[in-house]
Amino acid sequence: MTDAPYTPQVPRAPREVYLDYAAATPVAPEVIEAMLPYFTELFENPSAPYARARAVRASYEQARTTLAHLIGAKPGNVTITAGATEANNLALATVTGPLITAATEHESVLATVQARGGQLLPVSSEGLVSASTLEAALTPETELVSVALANGEVGAVQPIRELAAVVAKERDRRLAAGEKTPLYLHTDASQAAATRTVDVSQLRADLVTLSAAKVYGPKQVGLVWAADGVCLRPLVLGGGQEGGVRSGTENVAGAVGFARALELASAGRAKESKRLEKLRNGLLRALTGEFSWLQVSGPRNPKNRLSGLLHISFPGLDARRLVVLLERRGVSVGTGSACAASKMRVSHVLEAMGVSEAAARGSLRISLGRPTTEDDVRCAGEAIAAVVREECARLGLDARTGEPA
Amino acid sequence: MTDAPYTPQVPRAPREVYLDYAAATPVAPEVIEAMLPYFTELFENPSAPYARARAVRASYEQARTTLAHLIGAKPGNVTITAGATEANNLALATVTGPLITAATEHESVLATVQARGGQLLPVSSEGLVSASTLEAALTPETELVSVALANGEVGAVQPIRELAAVVAKERDRRLAAGEKTPLYLHTDASQAAATRTVDVSQLRADLVTLSAAKVYGPKQVGLVWAADGVCLRPLVLGGGQEGGVRSGTENVAGAVGFARALELASAGRAKESKRLEKLRNGLLRALTGEFSWLQVSGPRNPKNRLSGLLHISFPGLDARRLVVLLERRGVSVGTGSACAASKMRVSHVLEAMGVSEAAARGSLRISLGRPTTEDDVRCAGEAIAAVVREECARLGLDARTGEPA
Repeated sequence: MTDAPYTPQVPRAPREVYLDYAAATPVAPEVIEAMLPYFTELFENPSAPYARARAVRASYEQARTTLAHLIGAKPGNVTITAGATEANNLALATVTGPLITAATEHESVLATVQARGGQLLPVSSEGLVSASTLEAALTPETELVSVALANGEVGAVQPIRELAAVVAKERDRRLAAGEKTPLYLHTDASQAAATRTVDVSQLRADLVTLSAAKVYGPKQVGLVWAADGVCLRPLVLGGGQEGGVRSGTENVAGAVGFARALELASAGRAKESKRLEKLRNGLLRALTGEFSWLQVSGPRNPKNRLSGLLHISFPGLDARRLVVLLERRGVSVGTGSACAASKMRVSHVLEAMGVSEAAARGSLRISLGRPTTEDDVRCAGEAIAAVVREECARLGLDARTGEPA
Repeated sequence: MTDAPYTPQVPRAPREVYLDYAAATPVAPEVIEAMLPYFTELFENPSAPYARARAVRASYEQARTTLAHLIGAKPGNVTITAGATEANNLALATVTGPLITAATEHESVLATVQARGGQLLPVSSEGLVSASTLEAALTPETELVSVALANGEVGAVQPIRELAAVVAKERDRRLAAGEKTPLYLHTDASQAAATRTVDVSQLRADLVTLSAAKVYGPKQVGLVWAADGVCLRPLVLGGGQEGGVRSGTENVAGAVGFARALELASAGRAKESKRLEKLRNGLLRALTGEFSWLQVSGPRNPKNRLSGLLHISFPGLDARRLVVLLERRGVSVGTGSACAASKMRVSHVLEAMGVSEAAARGSLRISLGRPTTEDDVRCAGEAIAAVVREECARLGLDARTGEPA
């Protein structure tokens, strides 16, 4: 068998522009460099007893320490996982009682909450969960609330500190009433970490998830932070690695890569966030200038939006066709979260926000990232405009208004 | 922060000999080469809708197909996991009823079976499970039997086909009696795959686990094969990847690396196995020539032993001291399975085989691998002989007999 199937030759357009960094990020060169030694000269099992294995163990624990410090935490509170989905599942497994989450959450949270008969909080038309909505939904039996710091589809950044205050108030009430039911707040900060500070003490959550794959680290590496006193329970049993919470020989290369990736993201975050916001706003201006009927989803207040993300809808057009036409012009954009996209159904996020089906079906999620340049955005803007005009012409719509021509 | 903590400088002895391939294998250069493109130019989310993402999906599925064909299976029956521990947990979660396993199994199986109140089969002094022992232990309620193809500590290769025949007989009885209780045989073939053919139709098991980390592939990548009609149930919920069994964005690089690693292992297996057996036997001869009191654990019949593994005990000596003394001479060997070793307790495998505590405490697990040369083995043999003599002298023992001098 030859190597051919492993290196598919995808035809390249003259200029390729990838704008789906919310779905996947390339691994940064510095991260690959940090990982490589752990595939070869430092490959030993971190649990083995000899010096070289102990050095590998030390690197792994150093990676954990780096990750912890970058989120304002202690290393002992950080459990390294095979990605955010597992981390979210672990976070939700800390309790066995009723769960509450937002209707716009990622499948890894929604599926667990729904399997356990939990409650879904409505969101505003901007995709935000309000403190009052959470307050009204909490019952004396609720054991965990899970709301992502930022939604990966429309970029809505939730008021986690306000939600944490609601949770803290209910916790205080239970304490005063002598009730023993625990109540935790979990937040999946995976989509936020590339452009927003994730500091566990500022967030005031009890459980926080992060993903390496969203910050230019490797796929299938993540972490869950748990506050002191919050006890994670294993989903998988075995050799007792990760303090017994997550058995299996450690992914040393992955953890080291994650630490390096989060270091890089943290160091460049403030500047990068501003840069992406400027590019994103430029793209939006160019498109709204031409298509007045274009709808933008997500919070209006820029403070409550992920800076590199733009969710736009062309009601009446078919996003799947737009994606294919854009791809022919070398531009890759998403139609929503990658998981939902592959199932070709209307996004549950847009549905929860009350977006019309016509708008939902004509939605593109455009997400900018570290390699994105001004030229990329200009090219993408021109390509989007061209394919929207093309589709309008095919459907007999006036491209300026979206109405029948 | 500098890169320093990520590349620890471990002092190197003049010649380094690693003989703990059962604990961890370095990633083969060909495997790294196959993986690298999936960190960089083919990093897209396999569930995203555009052409480049579909190419990544195709590579991932090609890796699954390669893995499946290499074990004589259909791709649809292979679920890719984050390592063998998760694969074993998934395999055991296919049923909710009583489980049976061998007392010598890996922690990932033992812990699950014990948590569910399952039964442990005794093994012979050679570490083998007999068909008659299994037959006597099976009850009409038993739903799953899990016995590893090869034990990673003493290298005992179990008679899986004989055990499968016992399981098939009980299954036939249930069918004839109109009983609906399922009965499956699971085998963890992780430790066997580097040197023995793993073919699911030959094994006649219903569930098979493999690990990339034991065949010169990356850590935290594995698979579980399930026969037609055996339904895996997810331990983690989310986006529904891997047919809903294992959610989370796929580890594309890891799967591609695993496929390449298993290809290489399969291609070179027969020759490599003979080479390692010869080296292993030479080492054993050298040591038994000098230390007549040395005890060898595991099956006497070479057919029932992993070819690259040698488990030896020096009753009265302390293996942990031997490991440290050997490490000073540049030789890395294990004291048992890496997980157990880190807990510094006597091996449950040796205990189940009836090995005396004195012998168990003086045990070394020496495992040879692809990079091992004749010179390595000679050096290691000399180093082991030297440190055994040294320890005997310190303890006032005659090194030739192990008795008080």
